[in-house]
Amino acid sequence: MPRMGERASVAQWLVAPGSGFRLADVDASATPGAPGGKEATVAASGEVHATLGALQERLWAEDARSLLVVFQAMDAGGKDGTIKKVFTGVNPQGVEVTSFKAPTDEELAHDFLWRVHAKTPARGRIGIFNRSHYEDVLVARVHGLISDDERRARYDRINEFERLLTGAGTTVVKVMLHISRDEQAERLRRRLERPDKRWKFRKGDLAERERWDEYMVAFEDAIAATSTELAPWFVVPADKKWYRDWVVLQILVDALQKIDPQFPEPEEDLDGVVVR
Amino acid sequence: MPRMGERASVAQWLVAPGSGFRLADVDASATPGAPGGKEATVAASGEVHATLGALQERLWAEDARSLLVVFQAMDAGGKDGTIKKVFTGVNPQGVEVTSFKAPTDEELAHDFLWRVHAKTPARGRIGIFNRSHYEDVLVARVHGLISDDERRARYDRINEFERLLTGAGTTVVKVMLHISRDEQAERLRRRLERPDKRWKFRKGDLAERERWDEYMVAFEDAIAATSTELAPWFVVPADKKWYRDWVVLQILVDALQKIDPQFPEPEEDLDGVVVR
Repeated sequence: MPRMGERASVAQWLVAPGSGFRLADVDASATPGAPGGKEATVAASGEVHATLGALQERLWAEDARSLLVVFQAMDAGGKDGTIKKVFTGVNPQGVEVTSFKAPTDEELAHDFLWRVHAKTPARGRIGIFNRSHYEDVLVARVHGLISDDERRARYDRINEFERLLTGAGTTVVKVMLHISRDEQAERLRRRLERPDKRWKFRKGDLAERERWDEYMVAFEDAIAATSTELAPWFVVPADKKWYRDWVVLQILVDALQKIDPQFPEPEEDLDGVVVR
Repeated sequence: MPRMGERASVAQWLVAPGSGFRLADVDASATPGAPGGKEATVAASGEVHATLGALQERLWAEDARSLLVVFQAMDAGGKDGTIKKVFTGVNPQGVEVTSFKAPTDEELAHDFLWRVHAKTPARGRIGIFNRSHYEDVLVARVHGLISDDERRARYDRINEFERLLTGAGTTVVKVMLHISRDEQAERLRRRLERPDKRWKFRKGDLAERERWDEYMVAFEDAIAATSTELAPWFVVPADKKWYRDWVVLQILVDALQKIDPQFPEPEEDLDGVVVR
């Protein structure tokens, strides 16, 4: 258990490439590595938050490299909440969130990576994908929209695409927020019961919930096939929101510390300059 | 002087359409309407900040209307700092900041509103322009790139463009952060002197500073010509950052309260639904 302020090793949430990853081995309600219970962990997150803000400022100032963070989860898995909690407090100049919905006609008229490529982060930016090109191997598989061959071909295209991005200076980090089936039921019930949350409830979510086991197979297979050295997956136990937020902060700060962005050099010959 | 928590009237910073606006009448170092000195005003901003966050959440949930905030200022006028201070703490999902730089070849191959139109906020979003189409009547004028006729034609095109946006559900608010020439000198000197700020210093800024008076004429004329009922300008005394941030928060909360976004209605027939 790390002490307050100490950085936790992100290896514990990493899906090591070629490791024979099994989603069933991840307990969605566990809190491995947490600095303590809820209160201590929230306090620790506060410190990491400040570090994230400082690193983002340097990334923006450096204007040379970028970070892409992909979030995937089941419905009610906490994508919106994580983005709100983790990135509120970071200067929005330099952070770009893209929520991918059902594709438009124009998007469908192109290959499946076209719309996501258009939204990858420019130099100096953090790009956040709320859903992503992984929908095209998850939903598409569960709903039988693609053959097994097409799915495997898409894994290859995804790995090649992400290699293109990393080769151009974009660090790619992919995060599955993993909740249990019981936790999803809790959250959907809360949406139904709370008048101020009810507008979020979609009857269609119940139909997807029926396919829970198929989704777990699809997630496991896609993550195993696309967690690479260059663009790794992290699977985060996400039943407990305070733990989830802390883990995501650890993963992002670790990625930015590896980038190690630097303030640029000043212009030359500034020593004699006087402002009148 | 408003009491804590009470909303100040934004009329005091508004450039009333057709009012014969004179920039020289605005004292950049004044703090009219502030709830007190620095400490009291920062505390008041904290409260308004929470209100801004809550209104943004509703705007996003409603997914029907949007808000565009345009920031213009002289170099070192505080555009970056204001955006950081005012919007850090707002969920970045739903906030999109665009910094307009010198136009690219592709942008120059189109009309001057093409690149800004592409970045106007979609339904549910707050769009923030750090510089904007107003550069094309400010810098362009001071550097003699356009004739007087062309400049006046651009004012008309801008007013028509902003009418298009407001007609489609986008509230447009334009903010000039007004600093004094002395304050600019202070800030540029600080950039030179502080090792961690020195990278921000551009010798080219000194050449622009030589044209201060021409810029003031250009700002005054452009603001007078384009502050309309639908898309008003606010001129904010911005020498004191704590006052500036508080005023911008007032203006944004006022705009969002006038939009008065609502959480959407839930789907129909949810009463019998059970989550299993």
